[in-house]
Parts: sequence; structure tokens; C-alpha cells
Amino acid sequence: MSERKPAGRPVRVALLGCGTVGTEVVRLLHEQADDLTARVGAPVELVGVAVRRPNKHREVPAELLTTDAAGLIDSDVDVVVEVIGGIEPARTLLLAALRAGKSVVTANKALLAEHGGELFEAADASGADLYFEAAVAGAIPLLRPLRESLAGDRITRVMGIVNGTTNFILSAMDGTGASYAETLEEATQLGYAEADPTADVDGFDAAAKAAILASLAFHTRVTAADVHREGIASVTAADVAAARELGRAVKLLAICEREVDETGGEAVSVRVHPAMIPRSHPLAGVNGAFNAVFVEAEAAGQLMFYGQGAGGAPTASAVLGDLVAVARNRVVGGRGPRESAYADLSVRPMGQTPTRYHVSLDVADRSGVLAQVAAVFAEHDVSIAVVRQQGRGEDASLVVVTHSAQDSALQSTVDKIAGLPVVREVVSVMRVEGEES
Amino acid sequence: MSERKPAGRPVRVALLGCGTVGTEVVRLLHEQADDLTARVGAPVELVGVAVRRPNKHREVPAELLTTDAAGLIDSDVDVVVEVIGGIEPARTLLLAALRAGKSVVTANKALLAEHGGELFEAADASGADLYFEAAVAGAIPLLRPLRESLAGDRITRVMGIVNGTTNFILSAMDGTGASYAETLEEATQLGYAEADPTADVDGFDAAAKAAILASLAFHTRVTAADVHREGIASVTAADVAAARELGRAVKLLAICEREVDETGGEAVSVRVHPAMIPRSHPLAGVNGAFNAVFVEAEAAGQLMFYGQGAGGAPTASAVLGDLVAVARNRVVGGRGPRESAYADLSVRPMGQTPTRYHVSLDVADRSGVLAQVAAVFAEHDVSIAVVRQQGRGEDASLVVVTHSAQDSALQSTVDKIAGLPVVREVVSVMRVEGEES
Repeated sequence: MSERKPAGRPVRVALLGCGTVGTEVVRLLHEQADDLTARVGAPVELVGVAVRRPNKHREVPAELLTTDAAGLIDSDVDVVVEVIGGIEPARTLLLAALRAGKSVVTANKALLAEHGGELFEAADASGADLYFEAAVAGAIPLLRPLRESLAGDRITRVMGIVNGTTNFILSAMDGTGASYAETLEEATQLGYAEADPTADVDGFDAAAKAAILASLAFHTRVTAADVHREGIASVTAADVAAARELGRAVKLLAICEREVDETGGEAVSVRVHPAMIPRSHPLAGVNGAFNAVFVEAEAAGQLMFYGQGAGGAPTASAVLGDLVAVARNRVVGGRGPRESAYADLSVRPMGQTPTRYHVSLDVADRSGVLAQVAAVFAEHDVSIAVVRQQGRGEDASLVVVTHSAQDSALQSTVDKIAGLPVVREVVSVMRVEGEES
Repeated sequence: MSERKPAGRPVRVALLGCGTVGTEVVRLLHEQADDLTARVGAPVELVGVAVRRPNKHREVPAELLTTDAAGLIDSDVDVVVEVIGGIEPARTLLLAALRAGKSVVTANKALLAEHGGELFEAADASGADLYFEAAVAGAIPLLRPLRESLAGDRITRVMGIVNGTTNFILSAMDGTGASYAETLEEATQLGYAEADPTADVDGFDAAAKAAILASLAFHTRVTAADVHREGIASVTAADVAAARELGRAVKLLAICEREVDETGGEAVSVRVHPAMIPRSHPLAGVNGAFNAVFVEAEAAGQLMFYGQGAGGAPTASAVLGDLVAVARNRVVGGRGPRESAYADLSVRPMGQTPTRYHVSLDVADRSGVLAQVAAVFAEHDVSIAVVRQQGRGEDASLVVVTHSAQDSALQSTVDKIAGLPVVREVVSVMRVEGEES
């Protein structure tokens, strides 16, 4: 049996922020102190917690609390853990920490997706570690597998449900048939949506995560601004019902794909939008506040990672895992992986990205209608995979699912069809993912 | 953008073995040479491949082939990749490599499960890396998450399907209703089972993986001999049918649990056996040759990892991921995680492990039978969760599912019930997992 080795000099940790996640980090550092010492090879000592209102944090020993985050970073600390969120002051504080050679563990997806490059450069210049497993998909070990386990493979696709709030809303709409507005109100009352749900429902949160995932998967710097983003506010009960009828479910997906163009040149597409996926797809069964991410790589094939994507304890678990890694690097020497952006692939605009559409129409029920609609698809070079027409009195319901085509061509097709006199209403338009094209 | 830095001295790699996995490793090293150089920070150069019969490996450049594995290790190489499998000569060769300070990447579960301690000690003594992601669940990143991502959490349970052959057979039995013998024969013809299927169907392969998983999850040295092992050869069509009737599926599970006894003392149970799980459980949907592992940790909650558990390319993907990590450690300095066995928990015998049983009986259809059977359960202090009795002429079918009790008590209960004159036949006895006890 290996023996407990005498522990070295403590690793001194500063915590920035003490909300839901920070409180759990403090608790776990305290409760698991002995285990952490054994795993790191030295005690992990929390030496300060920077907060805005010290009198609001009775759960933290008073002598650890400070309002001076910059001063705390400047003091004798080895590792800075940031769970404040948002761009400033987190950006300035973490740059100061990294420039001073202190390792950083952060859960800040927005900061990484906007200023990741700057942070990595500061880390590289000083040789400090920058870890951020908690920034995407909470407790699910996802970034470390992408960054390390699959480092010898060629990742072709990452597709996942990475926002719990929108997944809760879409799951509930699917279950009840209720409208988006009603369901959002219920989610807010239950605490699954924030008072201002914009970051979640408009896809900003998922887009930041998609940027981080794409950067790691494709060794290319991708920022939030590169990500095509559509939220769920325009998903209607009719969309959800149309999906059900075809054995599909509507999910807000973050999709990162490696694409090869006609000349053999490579590019990536990174996007967040609602899409229909077959109910038999593993992601279709991911309900409520859970997250799941599908990864496809040339040699590894298909992989899936599933778990709780948010919440204090799950996110703190990811933070602590990173903290053990960077603390261990301090104790035994060495560094974790740096930024790997050598591939430097271009990000393809959404219009040029190949996608598939599901279009559900109310049309006049008379001869020649299908021919008119089909002609518009043909005109735009969009090939049709599935057609279902069903008469009901004067009207008919017409559902078309396309093969893969350029998103811009699909968009133009739908615009033109909406203007046809025989089309009474465009009931639902949604992209289709997760099946053979 | 980060720039390609000038690459350092090549990392020199020796490959031991060149079967299905080794051939894929050679191919990937060649095809992805530029990417690997960028990711490692230096070229990764394959300098030799040790095989038994060099004339059988036309896919490898002849000048790389040698029959002298020990000489190859002894030459100027930095990393040794072992995909021979089995105990000897792999053990002797890897010990020599580690003692000489060469990093080792291995896919050898049997060797790690039996002699892991010895290998880790050699690695620690020389400061070499020992990585083995490919040893469990093929391409699924599982060991790195357990070893690193969850290093700040307390893992309570690991439960998974880690053998593709047995999962293929059980999935097929569930689909067709056929017997074990018929299905094994079909699996052999299709190439899903080896000519000698013992290692798979008797659970040796899964037990080795369970030992490795338990060691990492509980920071305790667990060997294959510590694992309670039952294979699938005794699973009958009646067992599978009984499971179906109750909305369950039969799976061969590897289960590693942290347990707290009456005195608050901790121990672990590590076991491999067939069990019924509810069809709604995520593992129930894992069919064919796929693997999936469920991990529960105190802060992270439930996580699931899913993917291809075997095959040349998937396993090679895991080997290459490890190779990038150890090569990078060579280039930038530093070491990966060492063995962490400080917790040194005892492994509880199967008899003392709490489990639940499903028992399906053919009994005489007359009054008092249920009372007699129930009395035997009560006598052994086993509490009953579900009873279903259904008459059919002179006989009746009686199904009992118990609450959680000590496995030895459950075993004795079944033995005694089998001897009751009113019991015509014990149709099926199987443990139940994956639901509240």
C-alpha cells in the first residue's frame, strides 16, 4: 500500500465571489480537507474570500472575508478561484492574477468566450495554469476529455444541450402543450428561470459555452461573437406539436462542426438554435435541468456525457477538481495544457452552413398546390426528403422535411413559400438535427 | 492568435504489440503527425514496433519492426506504448521501462488489475508517467474524469456496462427470447464473441475493469481478486422474460460502491454480476457493443459516460490521448497523477454487501403457499418490496422482489425456499439494481 507522505507547504487559495457556487466551494474545502491534502500532496488552505458585502456571508469565517479582491490576489496566494461571473471586474482581476504567475480556476463562461485569448496569453507568459471545467456543463467532465483524452483524435462534431433553463422550458412545453410564455412564467416561479431570463432564453449562455467547446474541439480560437445564436422565445406550441407528430422533440442545441468545403479546405460552424431531433436520439431523452453533450471523433466514434449542468454543488465539484489539478501542479511541478489554437480554422457564416429544415404549412386543399410548393424548393436547389400532405376540408396540412442544404438557400425557400397565394400560413419552421441527411 | 512554436526534440515512442489496436495506433501516429506535433510541442516519432512475427505486419515499415521488445525498451526511447495484453511478458517489459524512467501508456486491464501496485511503485520511484485510459471502456474518457475531474469530490458509486460481448449477448437475448447458448453461438459467428469467450462471459474482463475503476474512485488499491465475479452463462431465457414482465432488463453490471457500516466505518464493495435494472434507467438503453458508466458523487450528483467500449480505432483514440499527455509532460516538464491509494478502505465480502433480489417461483396454487414463502423471507430478516401471484391451473407463478438486505441472507432465503415442498421450481433468481431500495 502506498503511504501518506508528509505534506508539503500549504497551497494558498483566494476565492473571488461567494454566491451559490462559492458557498459550496468553501464547504467542500472545509469538509474534504484531509482528502484534498492527500490528493494534492499538501494542505489546500483557503486564505481569503473577496465579496461585496461581508456581512451577508455568515457561513464564511469573518476573518477570511474582504472587499478588496485586488489586494487579496496581490497577497501571498498561489491559486485564485473566480466564481463572480460577468466580464468586469473578473477580467481585470484574473489578468492581474495570471500576470503575477498565480494559477486560476474559473467558472466564468462569458469571460472565457469573450476574452479567453487574452487570459491564455497572460497564463502562457507567466507559466501559470488556467483551468475552467466548471464554465461548461457544470459537473459534467467535458472540457478535460476534449482538451486531454481526445488530444490524439480528430473531433468532427460536438452537439449538446448545455443550458438547463431552456431545456426545462422546452421539456415542459413538450409535456403540457402549453405556450412558451406560459411555460416561462411557470419556470420563473419554480426558480428554473431567473427574473431576467435573457441570458438563457436568448441563447447567450449556450453561445458562450459553444464558443468554449469549439475552441477546444477544433484547436481554433472561437469567441461568442463568432457563434450564430437563436433563442427559444420564438418556439411555439405549434412547433412542439409538429415535432411530436413526426416523432421528434424540440431542443435548444449548441452545435460545433468541422466542415470541409469543395476545395478540401476546412472550416468550422458554431451555432446555437432550437432544432427537432428524433425521439430515439440520446439527447431527446435529456429532460429538465440536465445537460448532455454528444461528441464525435474520427477514431473514438460517438461519445456522450450526461449530468447536472448547473447548481451550486455540481459546479463546485468541477471547480474543486480543477483546484486539485492546479494545486498538484504547484506541489509536484508541471503545468496543465495551454491554449491550443494552432489549427486556426475559419468560422463559416450561418448562411453557408449545411442544415436541414422542417417546414409545416397550412395550404389550400386543391390540385397543383404541392407542385407549386415543390417548385420553390427545386428553384433553390433544395432537395426534399419527406412530404406529408393531409386534407381537412378546404385546407390541407403540408409538412416538408428537406435534405441537407445551405442555410441561406433554405431561408430563401421559406421566405418565398410564405408569399405563395396558396399558402394560408407557415405553421412551423425549424431545423432538423441528429439524423442522416 | 497563438502561433506555431518551433518544435523541440522529438518524443521517441516504442510500440509493443501490433494487433487490432496497435495497427490503428500506427495509422493515427502517421496520419495525424502534424496535429500531434502541434499539440505536444514536439514531433512524436515512432521508433520501433515489437512483434512476434515481423513478416505478418506489412502495414508497418519493415525497418521499424523488431522481435526484441526488451532491446527496444532499452534503446533511446522516451515513451513505451503497450498493447500486447495479458500478464507476461507485458509485466516484465513495463516494469523495465518504468524503472528506466520511461513513460508508459498501456491498454492492459488484466495487468493493471493484478499488478497495478507494482507498476505504480516503479513509476513513482523513477518519476515516470503511467497512463491507462484505454484499459477501461475503450474510447470513453472515464479514467481521466475519475482521476482528475472528480478529484475534489467524494465518489459514492460507479456502476456500468463495461463489456461489449456480454452486453451484445444479453441485448440479443432480450430482443429474441433465445437461450444463452444459441445467442452465444450467433455472437461468435458475427465476431462479437471470441472463439474462447471465457474472459468475457465469465466476467473476468469486467472484473479487471471494476478493480481499476474502484481503485481510482475510492483511492484504494483493489485487485481483480477482490472483485466478486459472476458471469452471464447462467442467465436463462426465463430470467430475461421475467425481467421483461416487470419492466426491467438484464445487464451484466460492474458495481463499485462506497459503504458505511453500523459503526460509521467505511468500506467498499466491488462486484460484477448480472442484474435486472428498470427499463427507464439510462443503462437499460445501452445496447449491443456499447459501454456506459454511471458515476455518482456527493457534489457532482449523477453523471453518465457513453460510447464504444472496444475496437481498434476507439481504443487507439484513448491510447493516443494518453500518449499526447505523457509526451507533453516530457516536453514541458511535469508529471501526471500518481497512484492515489491513501484511503486504503477494506473491500467487503459479497455476503455482507447489501443487495436486492428478484425471485420468480412456480408454486402449487393453493391457500397458505404465499404465507409459507413469506415466512422464509421474514425468518431471514429480508423485507419484501413487491409480490405478484398469478394462478394458472394447478400451479401459480409467484414473483417476489425484496428490499435491500445482506446478500448472504438473500442467498440463504432462496436456498430454503427452493426446498419447500410447495415450490415446484425456482424459475429465476437475479439481483435488482438501479432503483430505490
